[in-house]
Amino acid sequence: MQWTKVLGLGLGAAALLGLGIILGHFAIPKKANSPAPQDLDLEILETVMGQLDAQRIRENLRELSREPHVASSPRDEDLVQLLLQRWKDPESGLDSAEASTYEVLLSFPSQEQPNVVDIVGPTGDIIHSCHRTEENVTGEQGGPDVVQPYAAYAPSGTPQGLLVYANRGAEEDFKELQTQGIKLEGTIALTRYGGVGRGAKAVNAAKHGVAGVLVYTDPADINDGLSSPNETFPNSWYLPPSGVERGSYYEYFGDPLTPYLPAVPSSFRLDLANVSGFPPIPTQPIVCALGCPVNVSVYNRLELRNSSNVLGIIRGAVEPDRYVLYGNHRDSWVHGAVDPSSGTAVLLELSRVLGTLLKKGTWRPRRSIVFASWGAEEFGLIGSTEFTEEFFNKLQERTVAYINVDISVFANATLRVQGTPPVQSVVFSATKEIRSPGPGDLSIYDNWIRYFNRSSPVYGLVPSLGSLGAGSDYASFIHFLGISSMDIAYTYDRSKTSARIYPTYHTAFDTFDYMDKFLDPGFSSHQAVAQTAGSVILRLSDSFFLPLKVSDYSETLRSFLQAAQQDLGISLGMHRPLVTAVEKFEADAAALGQRISTLQKGNPDPLQVRMLNDQLMLLERTFLNPRAFPEERYYSHVLWAPRTGSVATFPGLSNACSRARDTASGSEAWAEVQRQLSIVVTALEGAAATLRPVADL
Amino acid sequence: MQWTKVLGLGLGAAALLGLGIILGHFAIPKKANSPAPQDLDLEILETVMGQLDAQRIRENLRELSREPHVASSPRDEDLVQLLLQRWKDPESGLDSAEASTYEVLLSFPSQEQPNVVDIVGPTGDIIHSCHRTEENVTGEQGGPDVVQPYAAYAPSGTPQGLLVYANRGAEEDFKELQTQGIKLEGTIALTRYGGVGRGAKAVNAAKHGVAGVLVYTDPADINDGLSSPNETFPNSWYLPPSGVERGSYYEYFGDPLTPYLPAVPSSFRLDLANVSGFPPIPTQPIVCALGCPVNVSVYNRLELRNSSNVLGIIRGAVEPDRYVLYGNHRDSWVHGAVDPSSGTAVLLELSRVLGTLLKKGTWRPRRSIVFASWGAEEFGLIGSTEFTEEFFNKLQERTVAYINVDISVFANATLRVQGTPPVQSVVFSATKEIRSPGPGDLSIYDNWIRYFNRSSPVYGLVPSLGSLGAGSDYASFIHFLGISSMDIAYTYDRSKTSARIYPTYHTAFDTFDYMDKFLDPGFSSHQAVAQTAGSVILRLSDSFFLPLKVSDYSETLRSFLQAAQQDLGISLGMHRPLVTAVEKFEADAAALGQRISTLQKGNPDPLQVRMLNDQLMLLERTFLNPRAFPEERYYSHVLWAPRTGSVATFPGLSNACSRARDTASGSEAWAEVQRQLSIVVTALEGAAATLRPVADL
Repeated sequence: MQWTKVLGLGLGAAALLGLGIILGHFAIPKKANSPAPQDLDLEILETVMGQLDAQRIRENLRELSREPHVASSPRDEDLVQLLLQRWKDPESGLDSAEASTYEVLLSFPSQEQPNVVDIVGPTGDIIHSCHRTEENVTGEQGGPDVVQPYAAYAPSGTPQGLLVYANRGAEEDFKELQTQGIKLEGTIALTRYGGVGRGAKAVNAAKHGVAGVLVYTDPADINDGLSSPNETFPNSWYLPPSGVERGSYYEYFGDPLTPYLPAVPSSFRLDLANVSGFPPIPTQPIVCALGCPVNVSVYNRLELRNSSNVLGIIRGAVEPDRYVLYGNHRDSWVHGAVDPSSGTAVLLELSRVLGTLLKKGTWRPRRSIVFASWGAEEFGLIGSTEFTEEFFNKLQERTVAYINVDISVFANATLRVQGTPPVQSVVFSATKEIRSPGPGDLSIYDNWIRYFNRSSPVYGLVPSLGSLGAGSDYASFIHFLGISSMDIAYTYDRSKTSARIYPTYHTAFDTFDYMDKFLDPGFSSHQAVAQTAGSVILRLSDSFFLPLKVSDYSETLRSFLQAAQQDLGISLGMHRPLVTAVEKFEADAAALGQRISTLQKGNPDPLQVRMLNDQLMLLERTFLNPRAFPEERYYSHVLWAPRTGSVATFPGLSNACSRARDTASGSEAWAEVQRQLSIVVTALEGAAATLRPVADL
Repeated sequence: MQWTKVLGLGLGAAALLGLGIILGHFAIPKKANSPAPQDLDLEILETVMGQLDAQRIRENLRELSREPHVASSPRDEDLVQLLLQRWKDPESGLDSAEASTYEVLLSFPSQEQPNVVDIVGPTGDIIHSCHRTEENVTGEQGGPDVVQPYAAYAPSGTPQGLLVYANRGAEEDFKELQTQGIKLEGTIALTRYGGVGRGAKAVNAAKHGVAGVLVYTDPADINDGLSSPNETFPNSWYLPPSGVERGSYYEYFGDPLTPYLPAVPSSFRLDLANVSGFPPIPTQPIVCALGCPVNVSVYNRLELRNSSNVLGIIRGAVEPDRYVLYGNHRDSWVHGAVDPSSGTAVLLELSRVLGTLLKKGTWRPRRSIVFASWGAEEFGLIGSTEFTEEFFNKLQERTVAYINVDISVFANATLRVQGTPPVQSVVFSATKEIRSPGPGDLSIYDNWIRYFNRSSPVYGLVPSLGSLGAGSDYASFIHFLGISSMDIAYTYDRSKTSARIYPTYHTAFDTFDYMDKFLDPGFSSHQAVAQTAGSVILRLSDSFFLPLKVSDYSETLRSFLQAAQQDLGISLGMHRPLVTAVEKFEADAAALGQRISTLQKGNPDPLQVRMLNDQLMLLERTFLNPRAFPEERYYSHVLWAPRTGSVATFPGLSNACSRARDTASGSEAWAEVQRQLSIVVTALEGAAATLRPVADL
């Protein structure tokens, strides 16, 4: 999981409560041998929920996290074979499975010449060398497969300079240092993880003439302030003092050499000189944080490597050309028990249970289900992005929704879901029917609402969904393809820890025992995630009417509109077309909901329902405009593109307003505000048009 | 019709003979009152063919061309009302009809201060003034509604300078003058129509310091060399000596102020200073072509005007969300009997015949049929382009095909069709069943093949379809939306005339009598076009299996590939992925054809056929890449974007190769060749993927 890229997007207004059109669906008893499902079968749903087994997930995790499996390593390739074997199993496999391999540019530290950070004394002698590896605390932190902590894609180089503490490495941090009269030219900036993206620290530093960047994990940010060995793993879930977070410092996502093209061998590759998005100066993550002059030696190497996605398919019985896509990445930084194997362990258990029903002839979904194990996510969501580049049109035409389960369990307190508004309803329907792990008899939904909630003007108090940034493999599905997406996990009780993320994130301490002892003993949270995802998959693939509630976008649009009116400093006259467009969307979405209700009461023709489902499926696509943000790569969703300001509103409009704020009226910057406003209005009007009765133009 | 923009694209390799999957379809007898058509009804088809009436088309044309009706003029608005009245008629109207109005930037000569071109004598006195209007030969060339000949969007200005003859005004023409030592700075360039686009003449001239451009129609280009009054209209079809071609000199299409946005009142509009694509220097079309100094006075004004599209709909009975779109523009330069009213006269007759069947309850198509009368085409395809901008997603998701009939009759010798490969088969099926006008008992198909033919490796000798440039309203449908499109007309026997286009094109002599006496006495060619278009519409809207033969793209791709291998000077190694991609497309398209045949023999489920039809309908979309040609506006079809070279091959690749030819290997230009190659390969691989069985990923 690429955590830092989620920053700046926050928990959005993405979510509303829908009691769920689907709940009322009648179940048709299944027939053995020639199943021809008409609708979601509640009996099958119950069977699947009952068969998802915590102990099997635990055993999956043990195997998956047994060895380090960084992208393209031999062990990563072994796991490709493991997935293929599981998905081709005659008793519990899928209809078909295959690996598809891309040749992508990855970055690794040199094995012969490790990256080094030395502190230099007043006389020029080395007075301290930072650890090059983590301490071998549990026996799993040693060996040649544990990749040295490094900043992937940081350039090689051996800068020397005075150490300057630069807080988070944000632009403001460097400006503040300048204000204090501190010379930055030629220094080594010491920064701590968090606040801004990894690569941004180096980009910001280089603008001020900084020669090298060090990044460390502050115990205050991740360990609730604790740092001594007896307070940390293996004695608690906290990060041992020697732990260092690895990570990709690439600013974009996808293979750096083949933007917008699949990284197949024949594809055109950029010259390295023309690649953008790499950190401009040597950068290295470290443990220690001392004073005085520093020598930094970074020997990272760029390498073209083969990295595979594994895809497994259950063919739909009635509408095989409609895909419910469910995926997670496979590659880790070290053992990656939490990130990403906790998700892969769930993926394997889900595919086993569904595959077994399939092979027995008990069940076949109405629509196709595609399981995906992505490669090289940690380097920048590479496998999933290349996949969307290769099959752009096909996926855009046919994909009902994308469900991502990366880290399935951060902690065992509550469900956490990020997603676009149309998926809220199906998640609510699913979670109301599943018992929450832990004491008491709450549903996952009722437990969830205790931790994340908001007051919806439409539904009252409901669990709140977060919005999707670019932190995991859903990024290219939502931002590049415009497919309704969601990311599901179990997570913390925020009243119990202020850790930025689980403490051993991207370190050699993220192991099976860590998960087994501290995050989810008994694996009941894993099971809860498997049940939630499984129920969502079944509802999306088997329901006669697609359970995508497009009218739940109305609440988001209304709140974006109100925020724009209150906080962006643009005139009321400018808002008028936006108000009209939002009102049209609301009315058209509500009317479509009415037509669905009416149709559901009758005995609708499958072709009629297909046409209506196409409207629901394709609504998210109408928010794409590949020409809206010419400076962004892949981002073309006019509602969820990156937003710099803190106001949850239309991102293009918000960004343009913050650039225009200090310019004269009539400036180019104000023209861009007007252009962004028209882009949003055109998208909303176009979206509303697709919701109206199909023969109205 | 914007004729000049067709240049440089030529008759492509777009077309192959398909005997037509559709011909074998069984007809189901129609039921009165509650028709639920399953497939094309041959009885209905025959009824429609029989009812399309040449005399009614003639009367339509008389009314439509009675008065000049330049875009946004009062008479243009009257015609909007005429169309609405016809389409809302209780006995022969459609299900619904409405006008939709955009506010667009047009350009007109000043009424108070006409544009003037004066020839100046050695002493500075005016020795000759060019005619400001055409001679009133038939009584229809006078009056305030006959817009003065002018170059729409040319800037105002009063340049004076020596007259230099610059042939076609192509870049080579100006270079040739330079080579001859002729000073171009400050001159007035005299150019003749044809060869390059209108606006390009001014763009090329301005690059050489030319101060103004005059454009005239050479009798050799349009009148087979004849020019005296008794040899020209009203005594023949040739242009009278005073005739001057008007036209838009805007280099792009769509409303110039709102690229990519619909020109609704609220949309963001570019500052005039930021508009690109206007001619850079004053330009004026004239008759006379003499020597010596010239004063040019252009007083054109830009005006924001309301211009309407009229849309009429017949709701589909079974798949109302699938649109067969049929359209033509309404606006003319003067009376516009040929351009565009001959097309509108056919449109009205087609809608009358289908509307009458509809209102009687005899028939309702399986899919929806949308009739469109576009506004402001002559200024740059504005009405149709704004429509595609406003409803981009909806149209892209749902449109089966776009059929354009602009000028329906250029002359009465033969059918002429431009289109993308998937439409070839349905046009062949239609034209084989309709009798050709004129003596003999040939079908339209058999007559057509005598004039335009080619030897297809697949089918043998077949009529050849031309490829679609940007000469009429199909442009945004094919290039911007990726919708399979065609343009249908009756045209010349090229052995009888070398006229660049019919001689009175865009002049005040393009009148009803001109058509009635010289181009299509008896209106049988109009009837032939109406029958062809009508049959195509019925086949596309009523056939159970869509009659789009996607495998006909294989022949085009193969010929593009061969041309690339032979003529582009790139290495065999570079071709390999292209060869593989073309082979994959061929195999996947052929296999899909097999599956269709098999399915047709059985009793397929409507949902099964719908899924298959979606593959056929959406194939053309897979060739779009909005990032392929960042410097082009709207063009995103990787097979049909503008191509500068004469080799019929992949345009992006061809253009990149011609730019790279004189550069060193390793240059940026060669990198662009590689990039374009990958864009084509990715598109072809992606297209093939959409043709494979839908549950294969």
